[in-house]
Amino acid sequence: MKNVTDTTGNLIERLTTLLASDLARVDAYFEEIIDSDTELVREVGQYVRSTHGKRLRPMLAILSSRAFGYSGTDHTKVAAALELVHTATLLHDDVVDKAPLRRGMPTVNARWGDDVAILIGDYLYSSAFHLALEALPPQVIRIICKVTASMCEGELFQIEKRESLLTRDDYLRIVRGKTAYLFSACAALGSQLAGAGDAEAALLATYGMNFGIAFQITDDTLDLVSSDDEIGKQHWADIRNGKQTLPLIHAFSVADPDDRADLVACWNNGRETERIMGHIRKYRGIEYALDEARQFAEAAKSQLAVLPPSEALDLMRDISDYVVSRTA
Amino acid sequence: MKNVTDTTGNLIERLTTLLASDLARVDAYFEEIIDSDTELVREVGQYVRSTHGKRLRPMLAILSSRAFGYSGTDHTKVAAALELVHTATLLHDDVVDKAPLRRGMPTVNARWGDDVAILIGDYLYSSAFHLALEALPPQVIRIICKVTASMCEGELFQIEKRESLLTRDDYLRIVRGKTAYLFSACAALGSQLAGAGDAEAALLATYGMNFGIAFQITDDTLDLVSSDDEIGKQHWADIRNGKQTLPLIHAFSVADPDDRADLVACWNNGRETERIMGHIRKYRGIEYALDEARQFAEAAKSQLAVLPPSEALDLMRDISDYVVSRTA
Repeated sequence: MKNVTDTTGNLIERLTTLLASDLARVDAYFEEIIDSDTELVREVGQYVRSTHGKRLRPMLAILSSRAFGYSGTDHTKVAAALELVHTATLLHDDVVDKAPLRRGMPTVNARWGDDVAILIGDYLYSSAFHLALEALPPQVIRIICKVTASMCEGELFQIEKRESLLTRDDYLRIVRGKTAYLFSACAALGSQLAGAGDAEAALLATYGMNFGIAFQITDDTLDLVSSDDEIGKQHWADIRNGKQTLPLIHAFSVADPDDRADLVACWNNGRETERIMGHIRKYRGIEYALDEARQFAEAAKSQLAVLPPSEALDLMRDISDYVVSRTA
Repeated sequence: MKNVTDTTGNLIERLTTLLASDLARVDAYFEEIIDSDTELVREVGQYVRSTHGKRLRPMLAILSSRAFGYSGTDHTKVAAALELVHTATLLHDDVVDKAPLRRGMPTVNARWGDDVAILIGDYLYSSAFHLALEALPPQVIRIICKVTASMCEGELFQIEKRESLLTRDDYLRIVRGKTAYLFSACAALGSQLAGAGDAEAALLATYGMNFGIAFQITDDTLDLVSSDDEIGKQHWADIRNGKQTLPLIHAFSVADPDDRADLVACWNNGRETERIMGHIRKYRGIEYALDEARQFAEAAKSQLAVLPPSEALDLMRDISDYVVSRTA
């Protein structure tokens, strides 16, 4: 049987090597931005830099430019700007969620306080727009602003619905806003910078949107199956915090009346994680969610079918498989 | 004797009437931005809109455009964008300061929680850049991004120095970053949109910087002299929170050794506000700070001396006098 962990691990390593010079430029922009007169900006900035994730968003932007034969370097500015927006969002999300850990390390809010995390996030947001303005025409920057606003709307919609039971549609609306829209922008803006036409950019935007949904469903579901070590944050954090993700939403929608009543009674009381997990397992919520994720990944890949073949497009297909098969 | 309160009250009323149609446009942009599909954005947005302040920043941007004969309407976009950046900053500042009240009303964090205040702030930031991109060329938008980043740096520098005694220079660095740089951008960008040359825009930028410093010193000092009703927030909040402003910094620097030792022992223990105020009064810290503010206001006005006379420039002089003579 195929060793999923190894394959996916290898893909990220392969991409990191293949795109090394572009990613080094992305990193250099980050370095420039945190080279401030204010010591706290440098100190926290270096910490954030050293604890970065897999850099899927800049990779997607870079691959998308390459798929359309781009040979300049401005795509790395776009990639860096979008990663900066993502990083700023994470800093603020961790304050909102009072998260103590991210990727196995203390969050900025845990280490320096909410105030510092909020302000460094704001600093990175404005620096992201500042950088993007070097590379892209105003109408494209407006898309980045719009995406950023949509991410906030996604989060706020989630807060608004905190006390209600979510439908699958509510969940997907949150996921599109919070996560998928930014992936969509990475893929679309990368291609536009490389001269893709509107129709092609729209395909890439849809690719990124479906990719992002597949990514987020998987991410949410991994919270329910991984140990602390694997995902580098607290296990079952979402269940404990009364956050509804697709496995739980599925259990709600298919449970028999007694189980449903039991779930309704305990899903957000912050204590009965084992009991909630029992229902999710009984109704195969995890399998259901992972299957949904795979379908979104397939929908992402199908967008690429009519485009001229290239190594970059192949990698964009591989990375779609990766996000739904990873275990961390 | 001149009745300062009445005169200044009248100036803001006069400006609000004189600039009514432009300010209505600024307000309309805000309305458009908060007209989101997400209910929380609309709800909190309307609250923020209904509790706005004197709108000094958009007024300054509008006056600055008018001083250079601008007859279009794009200056209201610039004014709205800069006011949005300011509003976003206030939302985040109130989270950082855990402030329960602003302008006599519950803050967004007090009423909806830190998470909502952070996210609505982020939403307004990105919407501000989005709006500004409609009216201004990229290099000008970059100034707005830079200002926003500098505001964060100002706040972070203040946090970094939280445990140390501030010098007057430290204090002015914080004030420039947190407050004055944005006023400077209002004045400079307003003039640039109206076709002012680089030298003229630089005068306006310096006007705005000095105006902003005068404004902030006065604002900080009013915290020490006003009753709760007058300033619409908790009296002596800065002293209670161990925030060093110019009256206290002055007392530190001129106090005799015994008094200084006493101040050093109690300035940030959060309890002895009367004792700290006693030292500030003894060393005339309030008078010193208000005199400094007046000097910055004069320095602001002096920038306008070589520009062609206009009603708008006269109002920019009047408003400089206003900010240092107001009592609330």
